[in-house]
Amino acid sequence: MSSRTHVLTDVSTRTWVPEFRDLVPGPQGPLARVDKYTLRGGMSDGVDVIEVDNGQLKVWLLPTRGMGLWKGEFAGRPLGWQSPVAQPVHPAFVNAHDRGGIGWLTGFNEWLCRCGLDANGPPGDGATLHGRIANLPAWRVTVTVDPSPDGGISVTGVVDETSLFGACLRLTSTLTLRHGASELTLVDQVTNLAGRPADLQLLYHTQFGPPFLEEGAEVVLPAARVVPRDARAAEGHAGWQRFLGPQAGYAEQVYYAQPSGTAAGETGVLLHNAAGNLGVSLGWNTHELPCFALWKNTQATADGYCVGLEPATNFPNLKAYERTQGRVKTVAPGGTHTVRLRMAVQTAAAEVAAEASRLRGLLPGRPTEVCQAPQAGWTPAGEPAR
Amino acid sequence: MSSRTHVLTDVSTRTWVPEFRDLVPGPQGPLARVDKYTLRGGMSDGVDVIEVDNGQLKVWLLPTRGMGLWKGEFAGRPLGWQSPVAQPVHPAFVNAHDRGGIGWLTGFNEWLCRCGLDANGPPGDGATLHGRIANLPAWRVTVTVDPSPDGGISVTGVVDETSLFGACLRLTSTLTLRHGASELTLVDQVTNLAGRPADLQLLYHTQFGPPFLEEGAEVVLPAARVVPRDARAAEGHAGWQRFLGPQAGYAEQVYYAQPSGTAAGETGVLLHNAAGNLGVSLGWNTHELPCFALWKNTQATADGYCVGLEPATNFPNLKAYERTQGRVKTVAPGGTHTVRLRMAVQTAAAEVAAEASRLRGLLPGRPTEVCQAPQAGWTPAGEPAR
Amino acid sequence: MSSRTHVLTDVSTRTWVPEFRDLVPGPQGPLARVDKYTLRGGMSDGVDVIEVDNGQLKVWLLPTRGMGLWKGEFAGRPLGWQSPVAQPVHPAFVNAHDRGGIGWLTGFNEWLCRCGLDANGPPGDGATLHGRIANLPAWRVTVTVDPSPDGGISVTGVVDETSLFGACLRLTSTLTLRHGASELTLVDQVTNLAGRPADLQLLYHTQFGPPFLEEGAEVVLPAARVVPRDARAAEGHAGWQRFLGPQAGYAEQVYYAQPSGTAAGETGVLLHNAAGNLGVSLGWNTHELPCFALWKNTQATADGYCVGLEPATNFPNLKAYERTQGRVKTVAPGGTHTVRLRMAVQTAAAEVAAEASRLRGLLPGRPTEVCQAPQAGWTPAGEPAR
Repeated sequence: MSSRTHVLTDVSTRTWVPEFRDLVPGPQGPLARVDKYTLRGGMSDGVDVIEVDNGQLKVWLLPTRGMGLWKGEFAGRPLGWQSPVAQPVHPAFVNAHDRGGIGWLTGFNEWLCRCGLDANGPPGDGATLHGRIANLPAWRVTVTVDPSPDGGISVTGVVDETSLFGACLRLTSTLTLRHGASELTLVDQVTNLAGRPADLQLLYHTQFGPPFLEEGAEVVLPAARVVPRDARAAEGHAGWQRFLGPQAGYAEQVYYAQPSGTAAGETGVLLHNAAGNLGVSLGWNTHELPCFALWKNTQATADGYCVGLEPATNFPNLKAYERTQGRVKTVAPGGTHTVRLRMAVQTAAAEVAAEASRLRGLLPGRPTEVCQAPQAGWTPAGEPAR
Repeated sequence: MSSRTHVLTDVSTRTWVPEFRDLVPGPQGPLARVDKYTLRGGMSDGVDVIEVDNGQLKVWLLPTRGMGLWKGEFAGRPLGWQSPVAQPVHPAFVNAHDRGGIGWLTGFNEWLCRCGLDANGPPGDGATLHGRIANLPAWRVTVTVDPSPDGGISVTGVVDETSLFGACLRLTSTLTLRHGASELTLVDQVTNLAGRPADLQLLYHTQFGPPFLEEGAEVVLPAARVVPRDARAAEGHAGWQRFLGPQAGYAEQVYYAQPSGTAAGETGVLLHNAAGNLGVSLGWNTHELPCFALWKNTQATADGYCVGLEPATNFPNLKAYERTQGRVKTVAPGGTHTVRLRMAVQTAAAEVAAEASRLRGLLPGRPTEVCQAPQAGWTPAGEPAR
Repeated sequence: MSSRTHVLTDVSTRTWVPEFRDLVPGPQGPLARVDKYTLRGGMSDGVDVIEVDNGQLKVWLLPTRGMGLWKGEFAGRPLGWQSPVAQPVHPAFVNAHDRGGIGWLTGFNEWLCRCGLDANGPPGDGATLHGRIANLPAWRVTVTVDPSPDGGISVTGVVDETSLFGACLRLTSTLTLRHGASELTLVDQVTNLAGRPADLQLLYHTQFGPPFLEEGAEVVLPAARVVPRDARAAEGHAGWQRFLGPQAGYAEQVYYAQPSGTAAGETGVLLHNAAGNLGVSLGWNTHELPCFALWKNTQATADGYCVGLEPATNFPNLKAYERTQGRVKTVAPGGTHTVRLRMAVQTAAAEVAAEASRLRGLLPGRPTEVCQAPQAGWTPAGEPAR
């Protein structure tokens, strides 16, 4: 059987399909399906949603919010978190300049969203928190269905972050779920449309709550060194790998690392529950995403109890600081930076242990060095006072 | 006959009814009706409108603008005012940060809208004029019709003002018009969705123009003390109760009060025309809304000739100032602050006189003290120079 | 045959026609046609487009973007330019406050758009780059078709730029294409809706790329004096009339002039290609638009290679500066400032030469004085240092 491709949105050809479904039949009911619809009402008015379900894993994708992954499910378990922002927010309702440039947070509830592309990190130097990409809609969206037993469903979106006299970067993102697989893959290509070299800052803000996160849950990260971002993170350096249950008033703690990988650069991170029999892992390549931030945000449930696993091209400091450290990528005119990201779920202790062991095996022959304080070269809080 | 409830919008269940009508039959034609539709074009594109008409009183409600009341009519007389912003403005066209944080004014034309919920007042300290709530759409809207002769029509909207790391307040507002009644009621519940205590600042910005406002029109307010907000208001302190006709170039004058009420806290304000035979009154509870601002804005007709009657939890000063005066309400995690507001129309001299007399009877045994200057503790302009 | 008028949008009467076509039949197929549709998806979602085609000249009009002209075609040749912002951007996706107040550029790709109405020019003094008008939708749109052989098609849009306590200006713009004509006309009326006198700043930002612009292309402008805006423009003063091919990294150069006209004030500008056999000209009246800015922006093709021909009421300096020079127009309460603008295409060397000759004939008997440096009274860069 051959694949079929559906164009759901293409502004350049005036194509827009308001509602869509395709099913892959299996021996007992559908093997997989993909649905598209548009939310109406509230701050979700006009937000397109694409659901992809391979029978095990289900993903809600948001073309209107930069091809972010709103939420997921694996065999009935929720993937993602419970943000205090309950529903997908149309970018028209997000004013990035609110509250001194952190208005981005009024629209933030995704399981996975991107920060960038020209800049990410805190507001400053004319930029707002985490850049534009999460609030830009895809102008072209296609779905490819390969109905063969070892096939899958892919959704590709094209998002332009452009301006006259500004960054002109195009994200072409493809999400793929193979039939019956317990993992998804993202292939993101960022192309510089401009005639000048372009900065690129790209961070994957990936959040998890229960049942993966809970008191006693842990991350496994093959990091030679872990650096607290600031004094608040330094307080908890000894327990950086382990998570608390929900704590009213907990102030976020962020740790930076540059994970080790295989000779080819393959690396990853694992989050598993306290019992070690349920996990979720990310995999990526250190040549594509050399940096990683661990966002510990174990606030009260009502306030958005979660952990963020954030592979990135850079640390989420101000771009000017990252530039001084050589961590701002440059994309040549017409050039493309490609990122491949995998997310997999482990539902048995043996699977969790195997993934943890594989990741620990990437460490360079000695245990992780956990810094007690912010470090120069990593974070502005680690620089000597002037 | 039993009531019937219609869900017009619910993002959480993917419910959205584009057009809707329900009629309550009466002996001669409809006793009451409710209609819902969506405006298209201009800056109104996408604004939902709900019209409720009880045969005497008609209200145009805007779920897309925080459940504000756009305009009304009573037996053919207009309720509301003629803002220079002629049509309802979709929040996507309002940039709160325009002109130093007063962009809210580009969307302001309601008969009644709310200011808040986390903050209201002037721009400053990272907030913009009058907060977010008037530019947030309801994500759930229901209509309940009780067709019994003493029944009515109610519209309930749920609006979330939320952000990660920010205020998470939910407004659940119900407007009710009983069949044939000359008044409406609002019951607003503001719930703190967060795991931390929340600030609450809520002000009802309620405007009237002709035929209620005209040269010689007056307000009756049971205020022990009336305080001019600033030097400009102080100029007119002696005539604070009485209104001018339209004056090109008139600069607004604002007076603050904390109205007296019954033992149970019931208070109100009355606006009546020069002849004293047409009035409109608001009623509320001082425990729920202890403060009141009178906004005299008798500019030229083309510039928005109106008076604002503004019961509130606080005076519309910067929140930091209100906090020093103990006028910022706190809502406990999961807690709710409820406000009940009534608006009634009087169309005969006797009715106007009765309402005026009732309100004057709430004064604490002595006439209103009208301050000649701004007072410390009331307004920053009243604080001693430093 | 008599004309017919179609109302496509009128918020005040709840009129909105989603799709529309009218054809004027001719001896061999349609003589002219007009189409209306709405774009869906991406940042164009909700943008209304009106296409008017007279058989020779075709215009894509954007009621949703202040009645701007997105692009055009003349006998298959593109009119307009290739902005790095590829598609029309709905105003909901433009945040004017981005990047220090130049967010307007994220939506800028028109062949002709207006800057104003209360202010244009750089960000500052509480205003953002080029004002609000290009990002305000028309609330009333009508199409008039005169099917007679010497008739044409007109589109009229009404756009309100209003705010309480702010500018309240109404643009009523009519575009007309006569059947078979090689030119279009715009008649713009700006009315002050307020009860106070209003500032008016109106600039027509009109862009051209190839085939009109190319290496060796030139402008002809009947300017007694040409003044470079700043040091960068001063570098190129000698070649101000002549254009380069696309240059990666070219920094814009802007020249100011106050063109001479006929006794009645008729003036214009011509852009023609290197061979002098293809041109496009603008015509206007110096009483309506006394100022002109030439925007040389011969960047790389990917970065938006173009020239801007910009007749205006003022130079695009900060309004406070323009006010000191007496170049801010005042419109009385209820008053109207009318602008007539014509754009014509020349496709033969003789036509180009005739238009160039006509424009040169408007010079006041001596060649253009080309200043080598910015001049006091023209541009802040020309003022003596303080």
